[in-house]
Formats: sequence, structure tokens, C-alpha cells
Amino acid sequence: MSWELGPGQLQDLARGAALLGTGGGGDPFIGRLLVEHAMREHGPVTVLDPDEVDDDALIVPTAQMGAPTVVVEKIPQGSEPESALRALEAQLGRSADATMPIECGGINSMIPLLVAARTGLPVVDADGMGRAFPELQMETFSVYGVSGSPMTVAGESQETVVINCGQDNPRMEWLARGITIRLGGVAYIAEYSMTGRQMKETAVPRTLSLALSVGKAISTARGANTDPIEGVRGALAPTLYNQLRILFQGKVTDVERRTVEGFARGRATFSDFTGEHNLQVQFQNENLVAIVDGEVRCVVPDLICVLESDSGEPITTEGLRYGQRVTVIGISTPKMMRTPAALNVFGPQSFGLDYSFEPVESLSERTRKPSLST
Amino acid sequence: MSWELGPGQLQDLARGAALLGTGGGGDPFIGRLLVEHAMREHGPVTVLDPDEVDDDALIVPTAQMGAPTVVVEKIPQGSEPESALRALEAQLGRSADATMPIECGGINSMIPLLVAARTGLPVVDADGMGRAFPELQMETFSVYGVSGSPMTVAGESQETVVINCGQDNPRMEWLARGITIRLGGVAYIAEYSMTGRQMKETAVPRTLSLALSVGKAISTARGANTDPIEGVRGALAPTLYNQLRILFQGKVTDVERRTVEGFARGRATFSDFTGEHNLQVQFQNENLVAIVDGEVRCVVPDLICVLESDSGEPITTEGLRYGQRVTVIGISTPKMMRTPAALNVFGPQSFGLDYSFEPVESLSERTRKPSLST
Repeated sequence: MSWELGPGQLQDLARGAALLGTGGGGDPFIGRLLVEHAMREHGPVTVLDPDEVDDDALIVPTAQMGAPTVVVEKIPQGSEPESALRALEAQLGRSADATMPIECGGINSMIPLLVAARTGLPVVDADGMGRAFPELQMETFSVYGVSGSPMTVAGESQETVVINCGQDNPRMEWLARGITIRLGGVAYIAEYSMTGRQMKETAVPRTLSLALSVGKAISTARGANTDPIEGVRGALAPTLYNQLRILFQGKVTDVERRTVEGFARGRATFSDFTGEHNLQVQFQNENLVAIVDGEVRCVVPDLICVLESDSGEPITTEGLRYGQRVTVIGISTPKMMRTPAALNVFGPQSFGLDYSFEPVESLSERTRKPSLST
Repeated sequence: MSWELGPGQLQDLARGAALLGTGGGGDPFIGRLLVEHAMREHGPVTVLDPDEVDDDALIVPTAQMGAPTVVVEKIPQGSEPESALRALEAQLGRSADATMPIECGGINSMIPLLVAARTGLPVVDADGMGRAFPELQMETFSVYGVSGSPMTVAGESQETVVINCGQDNPRMEWLARGITIRLGGVAYIAEYSMTGRQMKETAVPRTLSLALSVGKAISTARGANTDPIEGVRGALAPTLYNQLRILFQGKVTDVERRTVEGFARGRATFSDFTGEHNLQVQFQNENLVAIVDGEVRCVVPDLICVLESDSGEPITTEGLRYGQRVTVIGISTPKMMRTPAALNVFGPQSFGLDYSFEPVESLSERTRKPSLST
């Protein structure tokens, strides 16, 4: 059933999306302000359950593209993602019936809502990453056969670029990244236009609701003074993301971060309070692998999320600071993101990591430390 | 009057275009082979005098874009510039009535002929640079009010990109350069689509004929064992390029050349045979300034051309080798390229040079050395 999303739910949605962003995806804070503003002007947004979307409907996903470290400094006007949508409609010679997130984590949970509020289009409760990923071919749409091209890129000065690489989605990402860098490190895009039927076959379903319920669980726990991690565990239990493991508890001791080739790359080091154990997290925009005392405990595409221990507030890589007290959790991705075809596109080796994928629940079983609760 | 250009004229045309390329523009050799092949298959090309083009005709210039140092290593299949043309026609919703060079120097004298031979379109005897320049806003089309957008970029794997920056031609160049770099350093483009009337108002006229007559003068002198430089002088005398000065005679002693940000940048040093005098030439794809014994003798947009002393063969910057015996000449550009509006776009300061433009004929008068003939 379709439902209405209003400004009152945005804070929870943003918090849940920051968690699903697994350290990347861009801080949803700025996106939330833009959506709030647009909703005050144009009213709430209609969210469509994937099942109720017509097979022949045209869905045009919209998003922001760029390094999260740049996004926090380069605020959009608000019209850019709509420009990307309109430019793609012009290419297709057809109007969109709905928009949709390409990723449910980070600021890209908000961009389609901004487009929806401004245009009156509904937004589909699904996405193409089931979390956040740094590159455009890393979408379930691509894994399961939808072409990203033609895609459009819009900049802050009304520039638009149309990229057509046929079926070659990695090539599309390569060219779009080049344009994004030249636009200053952040751009707005419309891509993977598809039919309702294609969406049902390839999208990760109900991830907008997921972000909302995860965010709400954190808020509720905070209000009730209960453990926010347990709140998240409860919210995830009935979903496709039903395995949560606590990987580490401690504090941030070091962060190396560089913005290179349009990405934020680096690693963060955490130490527990005894000083006996340590955690290393490597990231490319998003957290890729969590290594506790030299052993892999969680690896992409499973989710590695760093939360403030007290409040359960998710911390993005650009928000990591020395001394923060954190709980780092691993969350299982849906089955459709763990298939060989999916791992071939966004498994550890796609990021140049020399690990094979193993589910967080089995890694946790194998390497379980007595000092950590599960 | 329109005329036919056949394979027999291509060698002279290529030689003249290499001279007008002022060290850059890409060696026309590879382009010539492609055009010869296309002409053998499809027949000769019709060249239209600018005056006979209908005011309402749609002209779509086509070109290669990239660093000349890359062009010599990355040979096109031949269909790429036609793909760029077709993609732009699709954007405009209208078929081209003719194509045209954007620059008459270097390989871009050949690319429109390749398109013309393959498609049957005529080519207009005019261009937008009156020589070669390294950037897309450095066109008389831009100086005199034509928008480069929408432009299209085609790569070797059937990728196409459409760039629309409205009236902002430097921004268009910036984005197109980013794409060209990501395509491996060379790409094929269609841009500055315009009406026949706009072409007559903004293009440098009859530069294809110019390249042909300059090339033919060099061949003729070589055959008759006369001075090829004097042959060039004679060919230029009745044209808009009627001032030729010999800047230096000597040999190449040093070449510094780097391919950076998609351009070939560097400087070449020449010494005369007494070892008392030296010439420095700085280039960004094309030669920008010629400094003899510390004094500027010729500066962009006037043409600085390095020729083999014996044969009159033009030498591109990527062809410069230690010990070559050369004659370096300066040639006046047409008046429309020396206006304040034009110098603002492709004068010395547009290349970061700290010189004001002064015509080669007056620089030569002022700094004339007794040891050099004029």
C-alpha cells in the first residue's frame, strides 16, 4: 500500500539512512534540510510499495554522485537532481511515472524525496544497493541486467551531460566520475531508468521503510533510555537484513582519509578500553572491511556501521574523530546481494581487497571473541 | 564555387595543414590514411565555398579532441567522428547539410573530410581557428557568438556523451576535456552546430584551400629544388595570412615535453650554427611564443611554424628531435583573429603567458637581427 511521508518522519529516516550508508553515502543532514524545505512548500511525498507499481510504469532513479568529503562543503541549490531527471526524460522522450533511490544509505535516501516533493512524482520504496556503494555499476539493477545508460548528470550551473555507454555500466561510471570531478566533486544524476517490472525483478525492496524503522528504533531507545543497538536489532529482525553482530566496542584512535580520484579513501583504527584489542576499518566512501586483531569480522557487501555507543547515532567516515566512543556492528545484506553475480560486482575483490566474501554471521561464529557480546 | 577534393590532393593538404597546425593539431598523417581509405570506398568529397552555403543550412563541425602525443599512439577505427555527428543530429532533431573543420591545422583538417566521404555530406571551406588551438572555446565561432553546446563526444567503444553548457563554451571545454581524458586521451566530437548565416559571420574563410595551396607550394619547391619557405611565402601572399617572417634558422638542442591534464605542454630550444643565438618556443599542443635571445619575436594567435630547413616539411612538437636542422617562421593571422574580443579568448594571456599580443610584422621590425633574412 502507498503511504505518505511528511517532514515529521525525515529525522528518523535520515538517521536510519546514515546507518545503512555504512560510513559513506554522504551525510543525509543537508539532504534532509532540502527535503523539509521542499515539503513545506509542496506538501508530503507519496511512497509506493514496489508491489503496487504498474509493470509498464517508467521509473527514473535520481541521486547525488560524488565524494562525501566534498558534499559537506558544496551545498546544492535543490533544483539539480530535478534537472537531471528532466534531461533524462527528454532523452527518453517520455515522462517518469515515479522516481526511486539508487541507494538507501546516506544522502541518496533524500535526493529522490527532494525530486518527488518538487515534481509531485511518487517515490518507490526500494533501491539498487540495499545500502550505499561508491560506484554506479554497483547496483542490483546492473547485476540483474538493467542498463544504466542513458544517464544524465546535472551541475550547479545548469550544465547537463548525457552519457550513453550501451550495456557497459562500469564504463558509464568511469565517464560520469570524470564529469563529477570536473563539476567540483559532486553532481546530480538520473540513471537506470526502468519499467515497473524491471524494478520488481532487480531492486532491493522496502529499503526506504527499512531506513525509517531503523532510525525510529534508535530514537525510541534513546527516549526510553534503553540500548539503541538492541533497538536496531529489533527493527532489523523481521526484514531481509536480519543478522546483526557487534564487531567491536572501543574508541577511535586514528583516521587516515584522502580525497583521491573523486573518492574518500582511507582507514580508521579503533582500540578497546583495555588497549588489548584493535579494529581496523578500510573505506572507499563506504566501510569495506572490519578487521579485529588481524582477523576479518565483516566484509562488503555486508554492512559495517560505526555508531556512537551512548546514543546509537551513526557516524560517517568524514565524521570520525579521535576519541569517539563507538560500537561497530555488522549487518547481513539481503540474499540477492550475496549471489555470485552480485559479489562479482560489489564483493571485496571489486574494491581491490584480497578477501573472499563470507557472511558476517559465519565470520562472527568462527572468530568469536569471549569479550564481546553478540 | 564548389569543388571536388580527391585522394590525389590529400598529401599536399596534409602538409599544409601540418604547417597551419603550428606544431600542434595532431599529425595529419593518420587522418590522411583514413580519408584516403574512405575516398577509395565512397569517392571524392565536395567542398563548398562559404559564400555559396545557404543561410538556413545546418552545418555541424566535426573534429578530434585530445593530446597530439596520444593521437599518434591511439588510431581511430574511422567511424567515431561520424558517431559524434549522428549523436548531435539526434539531439538537434535535424540532419546536417554540411560538415566543417573547427581548425584547419593538423589532423582536424582531415576529420571532416573523413565524415564527408563516409556520409556523402559536403564540407565547408572554412574553419573556427584559422590555425590550430588546444581548447574548444578558442574558436572564432565562440568569439563571435555561436554556442558550442550541445556538443557530442564519441569514443572508440560506441560511447557517446552529450554536453550542454548553454552559452558557456569554456565550461563545455572543461567537461569535454574531462571526458576525453577518461576515454584515453583522445575523442571525436561534433560541436558549434550553426546556420549558414552564422558560419559566414564567424568562420575563418577558405582555410581548407589555404592548407592545400601551402602544401602544394612546398611540394612544388621541393620538386623544382627551390626554397620551400619562399614557396610558402608566395602561397600566402594573396590570402588573409600575408605576412611571413623568418624567425630563426638553426638546430634543435633541447625538447621538454609532458602530457598533463590532457595536453602536451613543454618547450623546445634551438641554437643557430654559430652557437651565439638561441630560440625558445613554448607550447601547449601548439606553439605559443617564440623568444629569440630573450626577445619575443612571434606570439599566439600569430602562427609559429617549425619547418625542416631542406625540405620545408612542417615538424609537430611531438616530432621535434635533437639535432634537426630547422627554419622557424612566423605568419600573421587574419584580422578577425587579432580583434580585442579574439585576443581575449586566444591571446597570449589566455595561455597564462605574461605577454601582450603584438603582430609578428611589427615585432619583427622592432627586433630585427642583421644575421637573419626576412
